[in-house]
Amino acid sequence: MRYVLRILLAILIMSALIQQPSYAKSSDLYKYLSVPGARATLPVEAAKEPFSKKFVDHARERFNNFHLQMGGDHALYYLMNLPEFMPTAMSMPAVKFKRLKRDIQEDLDKIEVKTDSEGVLTLSDYSVHPTFRHQGIMMVHQGKVVFEAFPGMTKTDMHVWMSSAKTTVGLVSAMLAEEGKIDVSQPITQYVPELAGTAWDSLSVLNVLNHTTALDSEETGESVLDPNSVIVSYFSAIFGTPNSGGCQTEDTVSVLRAFWPLYEEEPGAVFRYSSPNTDVLTMMIEHIEEKPWAAVFEERVWGKLNARMPAMFNMRPEGVALPLGLMSTTLEDMARYGVLFTPSWQAVAQEDVVSDAVLTRIQTGGDPEAFKDSAKDESGFKSFGGERAESNSYQWDWIFEDGAMAKSGNLNQLIYVDPERDFVGVVVSTTPYVAPYGETKAPAFMRAAAKFLHGK
Amino acid sequence: MRYVLRILLAILIMSALIQQPSYAKSSDLYKYLSVPGARATLPVEAAKEPFSKKFVDHARERFNNFHLQMGGDHALYYLMNLPEFMPTAMSMPAVKFKRLKRDIQEDLDKIEVKTDSEGVLTLSDYSVHPTFRHQGIMMVHQGKVVFEAFPGMTKTDMHVWMSSAKTTVGLVSAMLAEEGKIDVSQPITQYVPELAGTAWDSLSVLNVLNHTTALDSEETGESVLDPNSVIVSYFSAIFGTPNSGGCQTEDTVSVLRAFWPLYEEEPGAVFRYSSPNTDVLTMMIEHIEEKPWAAVFEERVWGKLNARMPAMFNMRPEGVALPLGLMSTTLEDMARYGVLFTPSWQAVAQEDVVSDAVLTRIQTGGDPEAFKDSAKDESGFKSFGGERAESNSYQWDWIFEDGAMAKSGNLNQLIYVDPERDFVGVVVSTTPYVAPYGETKAPAFMRAAAKFLHGK
Repeated sequence: MRYVLRILLAILIMSALIQQPSYAKSSDLYKYLSVPGARATLPVEAAKEPFSKKFVDHARERFNNFHLQMGGDHALYYLMNLPEFMPTAMSMPAVKFKRLKRDIQEDLDKIEVKTDSEGVLTLSDYSVHPTFRHQGIMMVHQGKVVFEAFPGMTKTDMHVWMSSAKTTVGLVSAMLAEEGKIDVSQPITQYVPELAGTAWDSLSVLNVLNHTTALDSEETGESVLDPNSVIVSYFSAIFGTPNSGGCQTEDTVSVLRAFWPLYEEEPGAVFRYSSPNTDVLTMMIEHIEEKPWAAVFEERVWGKLNARMPAMFNMRPEGVALPLGLMSTTLEDMARYGVLFTPSWQAVAQEDVVSDAVLTRIQTGGDPEAFKDSAKDESGFKSFGGERAESNSYQWDWIFEDGAMAKSGNLNQLIYVDPERDFVGVVVSTTPYVAPYGETKAPAFMRAAAKFLHGK
Repeated sequence: MRYVLRILLAILIMSALIQQPSYAKSSDLYKYLSVPGARATLPVEAAKEPFSKKFVDHARERFNNFHLQMGGDHALYYLMNLPEFMPTAMSMPAVKFKRLKRDIQEDLDKIEVKTDSEGVLTLSDYSVHPTFRHQGIMMVHQGKVVFEAFPGMTKTDMHVWMSSAKTTVGLVSAMLAEEGKIDVSQPITQYVPELAGTAWDSLSVLNVLNHTTALDSEETGESVLDPNSVIVSYFSAIFGTPNSGGCQTEDTVSVLRAFWPLYEEEPGAVFRYSSPNTDVLTMMIEHIEEKPWAAVFEERVWGKLNARMPAMFNMRPEGVALPLGLMSTTLEDMARYGVLFTPSWQAVAQEDVVSDAVLTRIQTGGDPEAFKDSAKDESGFKSFGGERAESNSYQWDWIFEDGAMAKSGNLNQLIYVDPERDFVGVVVSTTPYVAPYGETKAPAFMRAAAKFLHGK
């Protein structure tokens, strides 16, 4: 009975989230949630210990994108072990490894944030609260770790970044633009000829970088559950798994070529978040550099980072890495990457990887008009606890007027970088979207901590 | 013309190597060598720089076990990037990382070894000689690196161990035996019930550990090229690629169940090296521990090692890791693993992972009679430069009377552990078997260096 109520509640909540609720959509969700392992019954602490052979075999049999996105028990395993399920390319770190220094700030626990589901919580209570299902949280100020919690992973475990990984593509794109290797005002199909002769012809590189493509590819609560949406076809193609309609998978480029312009919307006008855009940018980067993504990212970023371990990128069947989301590292390595954008980069690298020009380009590349009232504007307002970002830019969801940048990932991943306050916050989780889960206030805690430590 | 001569020479040499040369076998080899990327035209130094997108895409299109085993240009990429081509499970290292101390011994260059193909060579000349195509060589004495060379990889690159990885399964099996969790005199099918009712019923665990199964599964120069051999069916199954006859792949357990006893040979009598034995032991370990191999290996070994990076195990389609060969690490992490078997284990771990009892069990578990005149007895005699081992044991190819242990891997990988002399040597390579390649004298250099440093 309790189970049935929970499912009904989940359906009601999802229906409220999606724009045009319908019986068909709810029944799709019900179908996904009915698969064994789709629901969260284990605490995230379970992921700190080995899973049984039987559990892992069951999870393997059921692996697909929809099942993963439910954020349930099986997802706990998937999100820390994606190389078991998809081909994986690696970017290797610098030879020299440097552990981040610790300067734990107990005072951070004075920070309180009001959550919708559990009332006012301190940072330490929030970090381990079972409603939020965060697995790892780390804050770095002036190049030193000031807060860390590992409720659902060990320090050497890898965890997927989900869409927080898109920032890596924004970064490399900004580098190429600064070097004059690309002109972001030019048509994207000039650099990605596979898409020439389609709707992509009318889009600039910047439109793709900022998700202002005016294509029918926006990821919404509705489209990601609609078996007939282009976005579902796209995810089926890159995961190499049949889509929810049980169809065969298609070639990714064919799916991308079939994207259609929205009626009466100009490119550049509206921020419509869509992962395929990042894939197209990855193709652009591979063409320009004539090397696979993982090699480019190693040469330009990860290979200069004093990280402990490789950055692992899962690939689609055609052999293209998916930095649009399927990137896994340790939590501390994720934090190190964030520190590259701060004045304390010397704590994590031997050279200045993110130049001032590249940073400024990212911070100022967006259009507040396109961002205003977008889905991310609204979700950011909520997760940052009532503070509103100014724009999105170069694959970052939120740029604040003070230059702070943040990018979320499905199932509650987060990277928050605040160069002015010399602060970085990273979060990895396996948080389902269905009640009683789905809320995150990690962004609010990050921004509050940055302000607290910086004194304003 | 030069190309044709080279192929003809290759065929002649392979024909000499295999026991019953025939036109059919030579034409199979010719077929594999004719695939673009199958031959070695690039120096191993090429692997220190990123490969082009075009090269990698070509290599990906052609990936299969036979193509990889040719050890050519594409294999250079495969052997350092296997997670791109097969599912991959990870064993994570200890939280604490310790760089191995350096105490480089210039005197080691006084060691000279007579090679068949290039005459007498010093260690430094041998290490980088293009005929041997070694990519990384490291020697550790008393827990410190005394020699290192990276002609074909960087210090952070991963490289596959090939069959040198089998020692990990021997180690965990010995641990389980010492703990009383298995009895190596019992039938293997008591622990691996999937194989009950087949020829495996008459084999003890020790028969499988020591490759004395009296089954028709020996890996010989002939059987690995014969499309109708059980060993080729087996490799096709675990790689998930069609076998050389173009057939569909089979389920691995079905292939294993079809192994047939040799006429008039008793289990225990003859050392007949066969990778499927290691797979069966891996299944045994997973059943006993009720956890996937990578979790067991992390709990017992890698998670206690102050290694830099994970140990990566590729998996067969059924989700079973393949420590029979498809294990990748950095070169220094491979050396660290070897140091666990020496008195200097404290240089690489916080606790004594390989107990005296486990070490003695491995060193004394073999039968000299079964080893004598085996293929490995002969190949060891050659690669160790005229010194003969006494037996094979617990997945190690060669145990010397002084307790030194060694295990080779296809395409010239090697681990040599000499506990009495507190010495470890590791080698990774991409050495084709066809002329002018195929020779290795790395084992001879390792043993000579151990004796030189130990003073006898």
